Amino acid sequence: MAMDPLSDTLFALADPTRRAILARLAEGEATVNELAAPFDISLPGVSKHLKVLERAKLISRTKTAQWRPCRLETAPLQDVDGWLTGYRKLWDHRLDRLETYVATLQASDGNKDRN
Amino acid sequence: MAMDPLSDTLFALADPTRRAILARLAEGEATVNELAAPFDISLPGVSKHLKVLERAKLISRTKTAQWRPCRLETAPLQDVDGWLTGYRKLWDHRLDRLETYVATLQASDGNKDRN
Repeated sequence: MAMDPLSDTLFALADPTRRAILARLAEGEATVNELAAPFDISLPGVSKHLKVLERAKLISRTKTAQWRPCRLETAPLQDVDGWLTGYRKLWDHRLDRLETYVATLQASDGNKDRN
Repeated sequence: MAMDPLSDTLFALADPTRRAILARLAEGEATVNELAAPFDISLPGVSKHLKVLERAKLISRTKTAQWRPCRLETAPLQDVDGWLTGYRKLWDHRLDRLETYVATLQASDGNKDRN
């Protein structure tokens, strides 16, 4: 299944185990065995998750060292962040409108109390 | 397939047509027919995409109006934004380190030129 890079990234992130692997790698490089340790899944199961993350370029693996540590790559996450930018303006705007509406309600309540 | 809400959201976003539908809805509410118009896919195809977006709570549909317009809901996108926060620090930190490294290289080059 060949997808565009952003879809690849979002698909790879759509799994709690894969996100937990990334959270571990945010603390530093780790081997497959180290990554598998906290999870109740087999080593081949972890390897499968790593392949999905590697295809999405969210991790890279050293080719030379025998233990091939995995490293987190942040570029695809920055692309997700960039994609969200347009929507960020939208929810800020909606929040502003909601605040204005609540202020109007409070003002109208105040008027009622005085009458 | 029941997933956690964040995985549901990321999975729903992992498709260019579904992201294009959200981009259209960011401009305002739209009916299924209006949403289908720019895409070279059938109406049932668009309905299928809308169901995935609705399950992830990225869109809501008015139940009363006969034409049931779709509306973008930003809360799940804000959750993705929140999840990214920890990683944002990481790439800022890596960029800082890279800048320091480049500055060191430039300083060392400057020294060579003077010798």
